[in-house]
Amino acid sequence: MQRRSFIRTLGVAGAGATASLALQSPAIAQTRPKVNWRLVSGFPKQLDTIFGAAHVFADSVREVTDGQFDIKVHAPGEILESLGELDAVQNGLIDMAHTASYYFVDKDPTFAFGTGLPFGLNQRMTNAWLYEGDGMRLLEAFYSDYNIISFPAGNTGAQMGGWFRKEINSLEDMQGLKIRISGLGAQILKKIGAVPQFLAGGDIYEALKEGTIDAAEFVGPYDDARLGFNKVANYYYYPGWWEGGVALMNMINLQSWDALPNAYKAAIRSASALANVTMMARYDTLNPPTLRKLVAEGTILRPYTHDILEACFVASEAIYEEISAKNARFKLILDSYMEYRREAYMWFQRSEYSQDTFLMMQRRGGRL
Amino acid sequence: MQRRSFIRTLGVAGAGATASLALQSPAIAQTRPKVNWRLVSGFPKQLDTIFGAAHVFADSVREVTDGQFDIKVHAPGEILESLGELDAVQNGLIDMAHTASYYFVDKDPTFAFGTGLPFGLNQRMTNAWLYEGDGMRLLEAFYSDYNIISFPAGNTGAQMGGWFRKEINSLEDMQGLKIRISGLGAQILKKIGAVPQFLAGGDIYEALKEGTIDAAEFVGPYDDARLGFNKVANYYYYPGWWEGGVALMNMINLQSWDALPNAYKAAIRSASALANVTMMARYDTLNPPTLRKLVAEGTILRPYTHDILEACFVASEAIYEEISAKNARFKLILDSYMEYRREAYMWFQRSEYSQDTFLMMQRRGGRL
Repeated sequence: MQRRSFIRTLGVAGAGATASLALQSPAIAQTRPKVNWRLVSGFPKQLDTIFGAAHVFADSVREVTDGQFDIKVHAPGEILESLGELDAVQNGLIDMAHTASYYFVDKDPTFAFGTGLPFGLNQRMTNAWLYEGDGMRLLEAFYSDYNIISFPAGNTGAQMGGWFRKEINSLEDMQGLKIRISGLGAQILKKIGAVPQFLAGGDIYEALKEGTIDAAEFVGPYDDARLGFNKVANYYYYPGWWEGGVALMNMINLQSWDALPNAYKAAIRSASALANVTMMARYDTLNPPTLRKLVAEGTILRPYTHDILEACFVASEAIYEEISAKNARFKLILDSYMEYRREAYMWFQRSEYSQDTFLMMQRRGGRL
Repeated sequence: MQRRSFIRTLGVAGAGATASLALQSPAIAQTRPKVNWRLVSGFPKQLDTIFGAAHVFADSVREVTDGQFDIKVHAPGEILESLGELDAVQNGLIDMAHTASYYFVDKDPTFAFGTGLPFGLNQRMTNAWLYEGDGMRLLEAFYSDYNIISFPAGNTGAQMGGWFRKEINSLEDMQGLKIRISGLGAQILKKIGAVPQFLAGGDIYEALKEGTIDAAEFVGPYDDARLGFNKVANYYYYPGWWEGGVALMNMINLQSWDALPNAYKAAIRSASALANVTMMARYDTLNPPTLRKLVAEGTILRPYTHDILEACFVASEAIYEEISAKNARFKLILDSYMEYRREAYMWFQRSEYSQDTFLMMQRRGGRL
C-alpha cells in the first residue's frame, strides 16, 4: 500500500517529465516534479466556509508551484464512506484529508487536541499553542503512529451552543434530552444527564424536524442557516463550550509527505496558514449578518444558564482525569494544553478582554 | 528610478540564467527567474517577535521557490534613516518594507487603516475585515497612489496601555502628562489634555529614566521588557485602546511586484499569511510568562479608569469626524471599518465573549 502510494504521488507523466529535464537542468528538475494529490474534505460541499478552506489551500499550493503540484479537492462521498478519512489517509488510499481531528476520538481521545477540547483554548490561543507552544511538536509524535503528519488549516472560532426545540432554563431541563453532538462534548453531556446522539450533518435537519432529537449542535449562524436548522428549532444557545476554537487540520499520509521535495513541503506549510487565516476571516465576516437575519426571522438567542456551564465544566475535568489515568499520551498533551490555558487566560483578561468589554458596552449603548 | 528598480529586481545573474534556460525548457524558465529583493523592517533587530516576523516571511518565500526568490531582511538603520521606509519603497530604493502602516499618518491619516484605529477592531476582526471584508480591496486602491501594494503580515494583538511613572486615578491626572505615543492615539491624548511626544523605540528608556517624559507606550510585556521599561516606570496600564489589534504590513514597490511571475506573487501571499499567524502566536506565547515575571519583580498592573476611556473614546469619534470632513478617502474606508466594528461587536459578545468570560471566572477562582 505504501509503495503504491509513493509511486502514485509522483505520477507517470510527472516522473517522465522529471527524468527528461534532469539531463538539461538538474537543479530545477529535481525540485519541481509533477505531483498529483487527492484531498478529501470532511465536510459537505455546500459549506463554502469550511469546505471552501480546502480550496483556498489547494489553490495556493497550485499557484506557488506553477501548477506542478496539483491537489484535487473532493467531497467525502465522492471517494470515501462518511468519516473514513483517517483510515484512507493512513493507508495511502488518499494523500490527505482536510477535516476535524476530533472526529476520530473513538480510536484515541488524543485526536481531540488537533481540534480543541471542551472548555479549552479559544481560536487565538489554539493557534498560539499549535504554532509556538508545544502543540504541533506533541501532535506530530502522536499522529505519526497513524502514519500521518498534520498542519493547522482553518478555524471556526467559538461555535454556537446548538439549536433546541424548547427553552432550557436549568440543569434539570437537560435531563434526558436527546442532543446531536460529536467528540468529547458528547461524553460530557452524558455525564450531566443528557442523551448525546451522533448524526451526520446531512441527517440533522430531518431528525430535528421529526422530533426524534430535541436539540442539535453543528457550527455557527452561517453554516447552521445553510442547513436550515432555524426552520425546525427556535432556541439558539451559546456559547458552544465544547468548541471554543475549533481547528481544522490538513492530515497527510507520511509516505506522500516524505516523497515531496522541500519546496513543496514549504508550500503546504504556508498554504495551510493561508487557509487558516482565510477560513476564520470568512466565518467572522459571514456570521454577523446571518445572526442578525436569523433573529429577525424569529430565532431566539439564549445563553446557557450558569448551573449548566458549571456542571459541564466539572464533568469535563472528571473526564480528562479518567482518560489521563488510562492514556499516558493523552495526559502528556493535556498537561501542555491546560498549562497553556491557565497562562493564556491570565494574559487575555488584561488588554484583550477589557478592550472588548469597553467596546461591547459602547455597542450596547448604541454608540458604535 | 522605476526603471532601475525593475532591472534590479531581476538582477544581472538572474536575468542571464533565465535567458539561457529559456532555450531548453521555456515553461520553467519563464516562471522561475532568480530574483533578489531587499526588505527593510520598521523595527529593531532585538525584537524577535516583530522583527522576527519578516524572517518567517522571507524564509518561507525562499523555501517555496527553492532559493530562486531571495528576500534579504534588513534592520532600519542598515539601509535607511529611521522611519523612511515608505519613501524608500515608493521610490524603489528598496523592494519592500515590513512595518506599521500608521507610522505614515502624517502623509495621510488613511495610512492608519493598514494598522488599526484607536477603539477599532481587535486582532481577529482586523484579519476578517482585511481578508474577507472590504479592507484589502479598499487599501489596495489607496496604497497604489504611493506606488505600493500591501499584504497583512503580522499582528501584535491588543497592546498594553503603557508605562507610567506614577499612578493615574482619573482623567484629571492625565492633564499635562508627557506621554510617548505614535499614530492617531497621539491626537486623542492631546484632545483630552495630555502632551503626546514622539520618540523612536530606542530613545524611550532614557527619557523615562530621566523623567523628560512621564509615560510611554510601546507594545506589550515581552517587547517592553526587552527594552527595559519596567526598570524606569512602575505602573503598567491596560488596555492599549489605541492599538486593539495592530496589523503589520508587507508594503511592496509596485514595479518590483509587477515584475514578478505569478508563482512568486502567490508565494508572497501565502508567506505573508504564515508570518501573520506566526507572529501573533509568538506574542501570545511569550507575553504571559513575561507579564508574570514583571509583576513578580514589582510592576504594578492597573486598568485605565472608565472616565479616561470614555473621554478618549469621545475624542476619537470627534477626530474621525474632523478628518472625514477633509479627506474623502479616509471617510470611505472609515465607513467600511466602522460598519465592520458594529457588526463584529454584535457577534463576538455571544459565543466568544461568554466562553472567555466563563473561563476567566474559573481562572480567578483557581479552577483552571
